[in-house]
Amino acid sequence: MNNIFALSTELPQEEVFEAILTGSNIFLKRIISTGQVTPPGEWYDQIEDEWVLLLQGDACLSFEDGSSIDLKAGDYLLIPAGRKHRVERTSSEPPCIWLALHGNLLNSE
Amino acid sequence: MNNIFALSTELPQEEVFEAILTGSNIFLKRIISTGQVTPPGEWYDQIEDEWVLLLQGDACLSFEDGSSIDLKAGDYLLIPAGRKHRVERTSSEPPCIWLALHGNLLNSE
Repeated sequence: MNNIFALSTELPQEEVFEAILTGSNIFLKRIISTGQVTPPGEWYDQIEDEWVLLLQGDACLSFEDGSSIDLKAGDYLLIPAGRKHRVERTSSEPPCIWLALHGNLLNSE
Repeated sequence: MNNIFALSTELPQEEVFEAILTGSNIFLKRIISTGQVTPPGEWYDQIEDEWVLLLQGDACLSFEDGSSIDLKAGDYLLIPAGRKHRVERTSSEPPCIWLALHGNLLNSE
């Protein structure tokens, strides 16, 4: 058993991606951010849906249509495949702990 | 956007199951428990894998082999398909908030 809030005492300098589950067409990971953002001019443009839950910290995501969304601990949202997005801000105190689920999350067929 | 920790002020008398995502072969739900346990003699015996994360509260799960596991906030585990399990205890103050992902979570093919 593991704990989703457990962090090493020395915080990473870079964003950390940890695989939790790799199943049939799904991928669940934990991300630890300590201030990192998406590089200027870059976007995440994913072929799969992503469900993201911020478990600790606060952060801001923006989208290609100019909208942005502030997240606090516990907030979650679904980012459909192809919806370009960026991470504009992540807190370092406390570090952001994200849970991210990738897959075909919208099709109930 | 929703918040995984958000609860109505009046706590439910019965366990509450809320669908978050229903995708291709995956199902993500939130469960609110306030002291409920699996009825005596009954087991969950599931045809799909379940990944369960306790986000708030504390609880105890037991398994058919006689083992049991105490969970505190943040603890998560994978229950493979066919591993019979029961919920032996759930806290009501605070209520247990669970995140449960069902699907084929072990097969990376």
